[in-house]
Amino acid sequence: MLDFSCDYRNGACKEVLDALIKTNSETTATYGFDIYSQRAAEKIKALCKAPDAEVFFIAGGTQTNMTVISSCLRSYEGVVSAETGHINCHEAGAVEYTGCKVLSLPHHEGKICADELGAYMRDFENNGSRDHMVFPAMVYISYPTEYGTIYSKSELLEIRKICDEYKLKLFLDGARLGYGLCCDECDIDLPFIAKICDVFYIGGTKVGALCGEAVVFPKGAPAHFITMIKQRGAMLAKSRVLGVQFDALFSDGVYFKTAKNGADRAKDLKKAFADKGYKFFMNSPTNQQFIILDNKKLKELQSKVGFEVWEPYGTEQTVVRFATSWSTTEEDIKELEKLI
Amino acid sequence: MLDFSCDYRNGACKEVLDALIKTNSETTATYGFDIYSQRAAEKIKALCKAPDAEVFFIAGGTQTNMTVISSCLRSYEGVVSAETGHINCHEAGAVEYTGCKVLSLPHHEGKICADELGAYMRDFENNGSRDHMVFPAMVYISYPTEYGTIYSKSELLEIRKICDEYKLKLFLDGARLGYGLCCDECDIDLPFIAKICDVFYIGGTKVGALCGEAVVFPKGAPAHFITMIKQRGAMLAKSRVLGVQFDALFSDGVYFKTAKNGADRAKDLKKAFADKGYKFFMNSPTNQQFIILDNKKLKELQSKVGFEVWEPYGTEQTVVRFATSWSTTEEDIKELEKLI
Amino acid sequence: MLDFSCDYRNGACKEVLDALIKTNSETTATYGFDIYSQRAAEKIKALCKAPDAEVFFIAGGTQTNMTVISSCLRSYEGVVSAETGHINCHEAGAVEYTGCKVLSLPHHEGKICADELGAYMRDFENNGSRDHMVFPAMVYISYPTEYGTIYSKSELLEIRKICDEYKLKLFLDGARLGYGLCCDECDIDLPFIAKICDVFYIGGTKVGALCGEAVVFPKGAPAHFITMIKQRGAMLAKSRVLGVQFDALFSDGVYFKTAKNGADRAKDLKKAFADKGYKFFMNSPTNQQFIILDNKKLKELQSKVGFEVWEPYGTEQTVVRFATSWSTTEEDIKELEKLI
Amino acid sequence: MLDFSCDYRNGACKEVLDALIKTNSETTATYGFDIYSQRAAEKIKALCKAPDAEVFFIAGGTQTNMTVISSCLRSYEGVVSAETGHINCHEAGAVEYTGCKVLSLPHHEGKICADELGAYMRDFENNGSRDHMVFPAMVYISYPTEYGTIYSKSELLEIRKICDEYKLKLFLDGARLGYGLCCDECDIDLPFIAKICDVFYIGGTKVGALCGEAVVFPKGAPAHFITMIKQRGAMLAKSRVLGVQFDALFSDGVYFKTAKNGADRAKDLKKAFADKGYKFFMNSPTNQQFIILDNKKLKELQSKVGFEVWEPYGTEQTVVRFATSWSTTEEDIKELEKLI
Repeated sequence: MLDFSCDYRNGACKEVLDALIKTNSETTATYGFDIYSQRAAEKIKALCKAPDAEVFFIAGGTQTNMTVISSCLRSYEGVVSAETGHINCHEAGAVEYTGCKVLSLPHHEGKICADELGAYMRDFENNGSRDHMVFPAMVYISYPTEYGTIYSKSELLEIRKICDEYKLKLFLDGARLGYGLCCDECDIDLPFIAKICDVFYIGGTKVGALCGEAVVFPKGAPAHFITMIKQRGAMLAKSRVLGVQFDALFSDGVYFKTAKNGADRAKDLKKAFADKGYKFFMNSPTNQQFIILDNKKLKELQSKVGFEVWEPYGTEQTVVRFATSWSTTEEDIKELEKLI
Repeated sequence: MLDFSCDYRNGACKEVLDALIKTNSETTATYGFDIYSQRAAEKIKALCKAPDAEVFFIAGGTQTNMTVISSCLRSYEGVVSAETGHINCHEAGAVEYTGCKVLSLPHHEGKICADELGAYMRDFENNGSRDHMVFPAMVYISYPTEYGTIYSKSELLEIRKICDEYKLKLFLDGARLGYGLCCDECDIDLPFIAKICDVFYIGGTKVGALCGEAVVFPKGAPAHFITMIKQRGAMLAKSRVLGVQFDALFSDGVYFKTAKNGADRAKDLKKAFADKGYKFFMNSPTNQQFIILDNKKLKELQSKVGFEVWEPYGTEQTVVRFATSWSTTEEDIKELEKLI
Repeated sequence: MLDFSCDYRNGACKEVLDALIKTNSETTATYGFDIYSQRAAEKIKALCKAPDAEVFFIAGGTQTNMTVISSCLRSYEGVVSAETGHINCHEAGAVEYTGCKVLSLPHHEGKICADELGAYMRDFENNGSRDHMVFPAMVYISYPTEYGTIYSKSELLEIRKICDEYKLKLFLDGARLGYGLCCDECDIDLPFIAKICDVFYIGGTKVGALCGEAVVFPKGAPAHFITMIKQRGAMLAKSRVLGVQFDALFSDGVYFKTAKNGADRAKDLKKAFADKGYKFFMNSPTNQQFIILDNKKLKELQSKVGFEVWEPYGTEQTVVRFATSWSTTEEDIKELEKLI
Repeated sequence: MLDFSCDYRNGACKEVLDALIKTNSETTATYGFDIYSQRAAEKIKALCKAPDAEVFFIAGGTQTNMTVISSCLRSYEGVVSAETGHINCHEAGAVEYTGCKVLSLPHHEGKICADELGAYMRDFENNGSRDHMVFPAMVYISYPTEYGTIYSKSELLEIRKICDEYKLKLFLDGARLGYGLCCDECDIDLPFIAKICDVFYIGGTKVGALCGEAVVFPKGAPAHFITMIKQRGAMLAKSRVLGVQFDALFSDGVYFKTAKNGADRAKDLKKAFADKGYKFFMNSPTNQQFIILDNKKLKELQSKVGFEVWEPYGTEQTVVRFATSWSTTEEDIKELEKLI
């Protein structure tokens, strides 16, 4: 059955699979010191124009979030996130499990707003009970957000300004970074992200890899970050598994080519729904599209195509998510058009 | 200077101090097995009409909250609290430090509302990503709340009903319980609390003791709760210090007499402000009164009487807190009347 | 260069790689619900003759240890391990990071001894300060151990007896389980392990997979184990990556065939060293061989073949480790023979 | 009944009780900012000749240990302790509960030895798997030890030397510090301790106070230590309770006078046992005496005098502990002499 339910239901893109096959019988070093991890790191540093960066590969997104956040914060510090942030909702309390509080701000189509962040920080600084509160020390944003929306360059610069003013680290969750960077509305690139963020990651699992996320600390990682990765159970002994994949993804523009397909198919999908008069819950420019269905239509469609039920929209309608990915074809969209 | 800034600026009430003096040279058992802790526990069980209860004494409120919550929850579970709950705002992330997430609900004058709790639980149960979320397993309420307000009996019964429906434990933070139970608006008592709560505590620090909170598990405590108290650093070797104080507080109605004074003086204070036309931020019936002052008046008053600045109220006014306690006298109120 | 430094320096065995290639373009469910994970679980249950078992796939060993241990224990409980146990030495404190203490016992060639475990438990039970101590609640053993040694059936039955007597859970770390089960000295099998253990895992990373460990709870897992996997960051979104590999490993005896090669080559390697008069640090029957080298010889060999320096043996000699694996060939051993 | 079972079975010494009575009706600041806490801190800084020191008061010993250790260490770091250290045995895993591993060294009459510490650190530094291990970052010693023994000045200087060499923080648990400083064998004083330690505490609970330990960071505390105290539940709202007591203990030499009584009575007690031919388990110069009793004698004595059973000594004998304290009188010892 045609399936748009998420962007991690297929294997790897051709280039990644080929690289795994080609390197399979080689003998390599371990625990991140293999030649492929090292090579992939160098390629990422070059693409980010961040020669001082340190790059690490971790198997999954939640693992990356909890490892990065808990390694960057002291025990009295917390991380600010949109209330809809993945770390605040759908990671089973992984960040709190490491002892850190997630401090939530209102969301605006999945995004936080620099003004509200600034006001939050001012209130904190002026609060007489400050010493009895968790110190906001890091800001977590996702690009694209959990609703597929993206921050504009100017929005990000405003957030960075607040971070500078209050000495907050900025952490960008790029689980779907490729789809954000390759959509028409995007006005930023990797060097910009590397410039404004203290740490971010480039998602592989959802953009062509079997698994893996590339964590980038543009100005260098916390001391002994390797040991903290190990301590959180996030170190693969056979690190080449991740290294080989990211080396392939960042050779010959594979990552962007792969991501662009997802973004383009999403545009087609969006047009298909719009043309037929469907309404959208959010105006997402990336590979996740949130559509409002009448509940009757919902039932009908569920028997013909895979998608994800998101949340009720009043009593008669429901928000659903259709996701494209690197593996979605033009034919998939054409077939979908017939069904909706 | 006259001081209403908080309810823990004095020593102990006479009866508590006398008991400490009287017992000082006695030799007792330790770690909660001293005769005074045992005796105080029995008195509390009797007052609560909860013969199966287990009672423990812990030195402070944050310590009690973190110990109770982390001991009752499994790692995948979280505690629901009003966004204004003490555990969510002013305990420096102590609950999260133990690995548990605080799940916040909107507050209504410091209280959560059963309907919203029910809706939250229904949404959780119906959420397809439920297994990726923190499981709400306990409800934290404070009585009185951080704004001095109290739940009515019917509000509490409605909350309990939701707790029953969704198998949530109900935990009542009674740091200022006495002031709640002794105010005119109160329509509940200790046996009622013991009946509806899985665990609650009777605050001593703010109601006549030097320090100490009495934790009551009406239907029995989690297995090896003593070891969990120890593990969280919350066990006093010389446990008699707490036992003697609570034994005194729960002899001859001292606790209620002491608390009633705080509640009565708050009524006087409230009347004094109301008579002079001051406006209140919340309609609190207990020992904390939140008053809206013009900023000019604020400055003027600060030089004459101690109170706590709470939060800005627009740009020209400020919310301040005046707290009475077991040690506030009628003379204190009369003197205050002259100043405001 | 010839390399015996560890058993995770190559890719995947042929059958695993083929399965990844073959399934790559399929669309599957996620988060452990994909058909391959389900199928692999059924195969493992059948092999273990444990129809009530629950099976989960986790990417790495440390991650598995920390997830299993922290999910099975309450906060006041700890896990007993040989002082040389991987969790006690080489996981960067991952178990303690979850809040659990590792309680160490002396090791005997990497193994704990039932008598000492029994004595430890008796002392604990009789200790008047028991409530101030971490409660031993689980026993961690590795099979083979970190020194390549294996427990005999009777040794395991004795340990199980102590576990029964003191209600301890038994957890077997099988990161290299295949090499243990396929060596000549082994007198146990998977159904036996499933019978005596409360939880164990079958290592894939070191036995033919790219990554992955299969966790087996023969009598069922703790409630909401899935959420606890997620919370510790140990859940792969694209779970098929592990499912496909384990489905391949447990089809047509691939796992055992693969492991047997490692065990057999280790036997050859052992003989090669013994024939030339080298001394062994431990008498290991499995794929890790610990050899004592004169320091001069060590230097000489290091330029010709890869192996791992383990620890000094007096001032003139050093213990080194040679590891074979599923990918070691008879030719590799012959070549080694010429060098030593 | 005559009781030597521990040193925290009585109330407070006269001067402490008097101070609590005298100050009871005063109004003070809270959360450590009260005048008494501030004054006590100044007195302690003066006595320690440590003008840059920061001093904090915490209610109990385990709480102090867990708060200090977890606040000073990063997540990848651990604390080295004698295997018999209180943090390793009798604090219910409180340190591990905060995520930190206790790294144990062999004990010699309760003490660690600088040579073994040095060897441990050298092995760690030379270990190729260092990045997969917990980094030793702090050394925990107790003075007196859990067996009543004390380190000599030269032993401490040697330990400090190793700490300097390997950048280890030195933390001295002084739960019974007074009894150590006031015994005949002692060759150190507070300024010396302040000079060699990064942090230590002066125990009050066992030396004349109702409760409380004074934590001293001679060169200053970690940033935001107050918030970390709060986060661990270790902050008393009514901080004067501790401040008043320590202010009294450090006025007019009360602490030392009080401690000296405990040390002197221990000397008398030791002589009493020695004169009658009893054997000692350890040669303790401080207020805890460990005596070997025939099991028959043990039973007989238990009906006449309180003491603590420590551990079996072979099958026919038992080690028991007799503790004196600030409240032990010469008459108590005389009465004991008649019983033994």
